[in-house]
This record gives sequence, C-alpha cells and structure tokens, in this order.
Amino acid sequence: MATVQLVEYEDADQAVRQTYDDIMATRKTDRVNNFWKALAVQPELLRRTWEGVKSVMAPGFLDSLTKEMIYVAVSATNGCEYCINSHTAAARLKGMTDEMLGELMAIVGMANQTNALADGLQVEVDSAFRAGGLE
Amino acid sequence: MATVQLVEYEDADQAVRQTYDDIMATRKTDRVNNFWKALAVQPELLRRTWEGVKSVMAPGFLDSLTKEMIYVAVSATNGCEYCINSHTAAARLKGMTDEMLGELMAIVGMANQTNALADGLQVEVDSAFRAGGLE
Amino acid sequence: MATVQLVEYEDADQAVRQTYDDIMATRKTDRVNNFWKALAVQPELLRRTWEGVKSVMAPGFLDSLTKEMIYVAVSATNGCEYCINSHTAAARLKGMTDEMLGELMAIVGMANQTNALADGLQVEVDSAFRAGGLE
Amino acid sequence: MATVQLVEYEDADQAVRQTYDDIMATRKTDRVNNFWKALAVQPELLRRTWEGVKSVMAPGFLDSLTKEMIYVAVSATNGCEYCINSHTAAARLKGMTDEMLGELMAIVGMANQTNALADGLQVEVDSAFRAGGLE
Amino acid sequence: MATVQLVEYEDADQAVRQTYDDIMATRKTDRVNNFWKALAVQPELLRRTWEGVKSVMAPGFLDSLTKEMIYVAVSATNGCEYCINSHTAAARLKGMTDEMLGELMAIVGMANQTNALADGLQVEVDSAFRAGGLE
Amino acid sequence: MATVQLVEYEDADQAVRQTYDDIMATRKTDRVNNFWKALAVQPELLRRTWEGVKSVMAPGFLDSLTKEMIYVAVSATNGCEYCINSHTAAARLKGMTDEMLGELMAIVGMANQTNALADGLQVEVDSAFRAGGLE
Repeated sequence: MATVQLVEYEDADQAVRQTYDDIMATRKTDRVNNFWKALAVQPELLRRTWEGVKSVMAPGFLDSLTKEMIYVAVSATNGCEYCINSHTAAARLKGMTDEMLGELMAIVGMANQTNALADGLQVEVDSAFRAGGLE
Repeated sequence: MATVQLVEYEDADQAVRQTYDDIMATRKTDRVNNFWKALAVQPELLRRTWEGVKSVMAPGFLDSLTKEMIYVAVSATNGCEYCINSHTAAARLKGMTDEMLGELMAIVGMANQTNALADGLQVEVDSAFRAGGLE
Repeated sequence: MATVQLVEYEDADQAVRQTYDDIMATRKTDRVNNFWKALAVQPELLRRTWEGVKSVMAPGFLDSLTKEMIYVAVSATNGCEYCINSHTAAARLKGMTDEMLGELMAIVGMANQTNALADGLQVEVDSAFRAGGLE
Repeated sequence: MATVQLVEYEDADQAVRQTYDDIMATRKTDRVNNFWKALAVQPELLRRTWEGVKSVMAPGFLDSLTKEMIYVAVSATNGCEYCINSHTAAARLKGMTDEMLGELMAIVGMANQTNALADGLQVEVDSAFRAGGLE
Repeated sequence: MATVQLVEYEDADQAVRQTYDDIMATRKTDRVNNFWKALAVQPELLRRTWEGVKSVMAPGFLDSLTKEMIYVAVSATNGCEYCINSHTAAARLKGMTDEMLGELMAIVGMANQTNALADGLQVEVDSAFRAGGLE
Repeated sequence: MATVQLVEYEDADQAVRQTYDDIMATRKTDRVNNFWKALAVQPELLRRTWEGVKSVMAPGFLDSLTKEMIYVAVSATNGCEYCINSHTAAARLKGMTDEMLGELMAIVGMANQTNALADGLQVEVDSAFRAGGLE
C-alpha cells in the first residue's frame, strides 16, 4: 500500500488533470499508472517529473527501445520493484524480446559483479582511461 | 592503491598468462588493464570473470555499443569509479559521442530519481504490468 | 515471513522483556513492532540497537520531526520497505503533512538523480568545497 | 578527471550561458560549480536539472537548511563524493553547525544500520503501519 | 511474478536440462529453484551463472558455511529478497544457528552504519592502511 | 579532506580521550584511526559507535577473522573506500591470506551478480525457502 493516497482523475484538481491528460495523450492510453497517482500528492513534483521523463525518453541520439533497456538496467541495479515491472513492460511494448532481455540481464549481472570486484580490490584507474587515450 | 599486489605479465604463472594473452588478442591491444592484474590474485577468478565478460559483451541480439552503454549505466548507478572510467572509454571507442553520453546520463539520472520516488512512496505495481498485459 | 522467529513478550527472557518494556514506555504504546521482535534473536543486538535509536532520535540540535524525515530519506534511498513504512508512519505522528512528505520526496528524488549524474560523469570536487571556503 | 569536457562560460553557447547566468544570480556568486559545467555536455539536461534543483531546494513547507541536510543524508547513503562535499558546504553556509552535522550523521548511520537489519531479517511490515494507524 | 516465464524441466531444451540435472545432482535434491528457472530465458546465462556459483561456493580456503554467510551479508546489504531467503536457508542447512545469524546481522548492520559514516564525513584513508603497514 | 575537523588527542576533551584510550588499549596500538577522529565531532556518536564495533567484532559464535571478512564483504558492496581499506588491513592482520581474499571477493562478486539478476527478473521466493523447509 502506498504511503500516500493515490489521486484518481475524478478527485484531481486542474493542474493534476492537465498532467494526467498529457500522460494519456502521449502514451495513447486511457489509464494513468499508480506512480503518477502517487506523485500527485505534490502537483509540482508530478508535473516536473513527468516533463522530465517525457523529454528524456523521447527518441534522440538513442532510440526509444535502447532507452527503456537502460532504464531497466538502472532499476534492476537498485532493486526497484515498481520500476523494474513498469519499464520491462514498456520495453516489451517497444519490441524487446526474451532473448534481448536475457542479454540485458547478463550485462546487468556482470556489471554488478565487476563493480563490486573493482571496488572491493580498490583497483586504481589506468592512466590510459583518465587521459581519454583509449588505445 | 589496490588492496592486492597487481600481477604483471612477467611475474604471472602459466594460467594467468594464458588469460592475459586472450585479453590482449581479443581486444587487439598489448596492454592488460589494472582490473585484470588485480583479479589475478586468484587465477580461477580471473579466468572465470574474463570468460564471462568476453561472452556477455560480444555482439548478440544487442549490439556492442548498446552493451557498453548499459554497462556504464549500471556502473554510474553503483558509483564505481574504475568501471565508469573503463567502460566510458570503451563506449567512446565503439562510437559513443558526447551527445549519446549526455542522453545516457539523462536516463541514468531520471531512473535513479524515479526509483527513489517509487520506493519512497511505496507505490504498488499496477496489475496491468504484472499480468504482462501492457496496453 | 521473517527469516527468524519473532520473539513475543510472553516467550521472551528477562533481558529482552526489559528492552521491550523500555520501548513501550518511551513510545507510550502497548505494542512492540516486528522489527524489535526479530532483533530479539540476539538480545544484545536488540538492546544495543534500541539504545542507539532512542539516543539518536531524541530531540537535540535537530528536532524530532526533522530527524524522522531524514530517516525516511535514507530508507527511501535504500529502498527498505519496512523502514520506509515505519518511519513515514512515525513522521506523520510527529506532524508531517502530505505537503511536507511531497517536498521530502522531491528532494530525495533529486538527490538520487544528481548523485548518479555526478558519479556517472566523474565530476571532480571543486577546490572551493574542499577548502571549506564556500563563497 | 571528468569523463566529459567541462564547458567554461567563454566556450558556452547561448542556452548554456543563460543557465549559468541564472545559477550565479540565484546563488549570488560569480562561480559555476564543476557539476553544472559537466552537465553542459547536453544543454537540455543542464537546463532541466538546474530548474529542478532550484525549484526543489527553494524554501517551502520545509526550510532551506532542512532541505540541504536531507540532501546530504541521501548523498552520504549513496557515497557520492561530489554531492557530499557540495551539499555539506551549502548546508554550512545556511547555518549547519558541527553539532547539527554530528546529529545528522548519527541518524544517517543508524538508518543505514536498521535498513540492513530489517532487510537482512526480512521483517514483515506491521499491519498497523500499513493501515495508516500509527498508535 | 517474474518478468519472464519460468522454464520448467519438461519444457526445457537439452542445454537447459543438462544444467538443471547438474544443479539437482550437486545439491542432492529433486527440485530446481525459481532463480534458475528464470535464468533459463537465456540458456548460456543459466549455464555460466550456475558454473560460477558452483565453483565459487565449493569449499576452498574458506569453508562452505562461511561462504554462505558472506553471501547473506551481501544480499542483506543490497536488500535482495530472493537471495536473502535462499542463502539464509542454505546457511541454516549448513549449520548456521540463530546465534550465528544474530552475530552475522550485527556485523552487517554495523558495517552499513560505519560505511555511511565514513562516506558521509569523507574520512581520508590513513596512510598506514594504504601502505599495507597495519601496526 | 574530511568534511569535519579531525580531533587530535591533544585537542580532545575528557570524554573523547577516554574513548581514544579504550580504542588504543583494546587494539594494542598507540594510534587512533582517522575514522574515530572524525566521529569525535560528536562525542556521544564516537562513544556509541566504538562500543558497538568493539562488542560486535569481539569473538563470539563467529571467530574474529570471519567477522572481519564479512565486514569487508559489506564494505565492498557499498563501495566504501575507507572501510574497505581499514577492514582489509584488519583482516590481513588476523590471518587473511591472498588466497582467502581472492575467494572472499569471488563470493562478493557473484552475490552482487545474482542479487541483480534475481531483482531484475523479479524472481519469486520459492515457498520452500519461506516455509523454513530447506530440502
């Protein structure tokens, strides 16, 4: 159970409804996820977060599916149940197959392993990396 | 300073040298990074980790650059100085531009933000996500 | 389900009961939370942890509500379900409104974002900060 | 060394300069921190992040010093060297004494301890917390 | 609910069955845990991860119970529900008593506390530690 | 540079000196680490943390070396530079060899990997683990 009351459309004030409308229009759906209904506890937090997500996740130099997979990678690393579920679903909608998810998770697992090893052994950064010289 | 002695090629035993040789051949370089020299404290750990990284990072359903960017995303989330530096360098070698790094970081930042918000407000996963139904 | 048996008052030994009594007296309640019942697996861990929490959370240079909100901020960052729920409840008891929770979460989200960005881009600490000179 | 080139004012384009100007005006200083100079790799990321920080950290239902201390608490939990240094400096500027920092750190330490204990023992959330009933 | 379909033995291909057989033989059980059934989404990820776990957790310079307790310590720190449950169960099978779990958790809690304090106060590493000189 | 002034023995008040004396007597050394000198910003935090560490790390159901290795495992997972260095040094003093450190790190790496995988794939806990039934 969320630690705040989820704000349903019919109970929302004008500012919140405007954001909800934009979420549904952008995503071509008639449903607003619980995440946004929880953020609505503070309408400005809702608006700012949604504007950020909309801007960041729009196709740019990286395509939309790559962006969703990066989002899943971060969420898996943080162990955020909500975000893993919502962004895995979104990535599948955008074309991620089981094989791609398998490879994504293999990298996430490997990166978490070597992160712990590099930290645990306190390995010093090679000067070649820092110098921007990359061989 | 690493908490173990880095093992240089000339001081390495046969098993370690074999892995070093494979690293240099695969990466087409004559240098072995400090990370591997630290892992050589336990030759089996070195071999297994290298085999894993080589297998995971080879092009598959995801291309090689996408894989490096996912690696950077995890490393940034964990704040692993060594891995951020080494994999950002590797991603640049594979074609990541400043613009792509900018977008990558924007997603990493946003994901860390919404992960904390979803956890902090204890938002319940929408049944639509769990059902695999994605609208 | 906890990975240890929760120790109920009637099954507790003298040392554990003494801590339970102090918890209930300090908090003016007749209930002991599951957290303490789980720690009772090791009476000394229970006693030491409770003494620490009691001392740390008592009003001092920071007031009691500010302290609870800081506790929530850390717990949200770690994604600890139990602690988020218990300390959000405690903060509300001490006067935290929805508006305050909204602002608290906005900071928690923003800090997690900029932490990932500063780490991900490996930004060097400005010498002005280190020098204690703050402009 | 940052993994991107820091963008100095004299090398910045119009959009970046505008943000830099607003940072300096808002903070009443003639210096822009390295963090912002690194974000300038993507002007929109710079602008959006600054707008977010400015909005979130402005006094509201919580005062400005409390907000900085919450920022420090998150940054310490994540171990983000840059953010710990910059926000501790900012909190001191706003009046945080050594005694207040001592109490802040005591809470941060205690919260990280009990977070690990509650997770490690898999303690179930008391129904009283979930119900919003707080005794 | 897992974000992938769990692969049951009867639906598995030859490569996956071979790994399942080795898991059951090594562990002297006729059951394969959900974790492995989820990894089977990518047979190579399944094989590699299992080979790694089997090799790492076999008795060596550290005994098998010590290894499981270290696994629990990491999992508790990360707050990974699945791994905490599975490795606490495994550790108990190998002889971990409630008293030992209590001490293990006391260390995990204390280490998470002092980690946050050392980071939060940005304590510099004593040269004596770095020099390998340990007094 | 620490964000607080390190308190040297000659500048310390009576309460702080008493803790310093106990640290040096317990550890049979004439040096106090930077960590304690930083905590002395709040004498009660110093005293309480030291009492906790002394009590938790004393030999009990687990021996002293096992305890230090668990401490290193947590610190590596959190990436705490100070604690990794100080507790690796302490573990070596108590008899940890390079081979043992190698195995320790192999487990830490593997656990961080499977933690991310179990979270990332949202694997459900097997009822056998929860039931305490362990096969």
